[in-house]
Amino acid sequence: MSTPETRLDELGIELPEPLKPVATYVPYVISGNMLFVSGQVSASADGLIKGRLGENMELSAGQQAARFCGINLIAQCKAAVGDLSRIKRVVKLGGFVNVAPGFTDIPQVINGCSDLMVDVFGEVGRHARSAVSCPELPLGVAVEVDGIFELAE
Amino acid sequence: MSTPETRLDELGIELPEPLKPVATYVPYVISGNMLFVSGQVSASADGLIKGRLGENMELSAGQQAARFCGINLIAQCKAAVGDLSRIKRVVKLGGFVNVAPGFTDIPQVINGCSDLMVDVFGEVGRHARSAVSCPELPLGVAVEVDGIFELAE
Amino acid sequence: MSTPETRLDELGIELPEPLKPVATYVPYVISGNMLFVSGQVSASADGLIKGRLGENMELSAGQQAARFCGINLIAQCKAAVGDLSRIKRVVKLGGFVNVAPGFTDIPQVINGCSDLMVDVFGEVGRHARSAVSCPELPLGVAVEVDGIFELAE
Repeated sequence: MSTPETRLDELGIELPEPLKPVATYVPYVISGNMLFVSGQVSASADGLIKGRLGENMELSAGQQAARFCGINLIAQCKAAVGDLSRIKRVVKLGGFVNVAPGFTDIPQVINGCSDLMVDVFGEVGRHARSAVSCPELPLGVAVEVDGIFELAE
Repeated sequence: MSTPETRLDELGIELPEPLKPVATYVPYVISGNMLFVSGQVSASADGLIKGRLGENMELSAGQQAARFCGINLIAQCKAAVGDLSRIKRVVKLGGFVNVAPGFTDIPQVINGCSDLMVDVFGEVGRHARSAVSCPELPLGVAVEVDGIFELAE
Repeated sequence: MSTPETRLDELGIELPEPLKPVATYVPYVISGNMLFVSGQVSASADGLIKGRLGENMELSAGQQAARFCGINLIAQCKAAVGDLSRIKRVVKLGGFVNVAPGFTDIPQVINGCSDLMVDVFGEVGRHARSAVSCPELPLGVAVEVDGIFELAE
């Protein structure tokens, strides 16, 4: 049977070590059957993915950056629950894109993360979301996405 | 007895077809007794309401744009639960206003949405909220608001 | 035994009158065992703490501003639940920093709020969070933070 883990395999995605917050906050909190994951920045094995859409980064690169936010979210989920099949539903994503005024393809950027959720979790991956912009993001990254996930009992 | 639906009638508001997301995300997710509605952009029957406060849109037009975000949120609630009396509480709104630096009347803009919630839902409509700004919003719209609603069992 | 209230005392923090929203929204909503607190702006007994990081405010002043957002969040918690020991967990903070493009030390600013939560609530204060930026905030304040808290039964 297909699981989120086998789908990650099929997609050729190896989950990274979950990013460590450099502060007193934590990467996730479980409250009841809800998992709240801290905002994950766009970073890959090669380091931070920096840039500003509408200034020095193309849409396709922004989508790729958002996809890495998604990979980092899933890595946190894995650390939190062990078996990704325990994710009953991806409930809500909050996407923030680093933009220059004039760049309005914000939803298309965040689709890089949204599409990954459906690729990995299937129907369970269909989520509510907001997609907005910022004049700057931590350390100059291109995208940040946080998430709320429902856990099976 | 007054219901949210009769109050919409009295206010002369006809709920639109809920906006369809053009991606793999969905307009709302119900998790337990909580309804999470995706960020709704300012759009009316006449199309998207675009603009940037402090640049090319007056406060009153911004408030009207926020009110339409509220109408679109309520349309999603209606699609999600059928009978709006099933909304036990408007819990939290997240408001994002498209601004030029120098425009600080952000709460007053989002009041256009907040006031509508109380007009339609009465005391049940009184919500927590955040009201912040963005340098740009999807497709150039003036306002985006997402929402969390508690459902009666 | 140490309680959040005694720790506030030890830190020399006197909780202010909780800020009153000037609109139809409310400072907090309790839904089930979750407490949603509205975005609290940076304000002290001396008034609003205004400024834009990367333009006219230093990092240390921004951290102090974020700390006051935290004090105002705790003041709302106190108003909501009376005894702060009823806060079972600080679940999620959403931090927004008023920045000029080029300022990327956004997490460091919000640490001013995050650190306070741990100082006051101990392990219970360790939270998930997002830290992003805005081109402007209500009334020109430097920082806004909203919060989700889990309550003991």
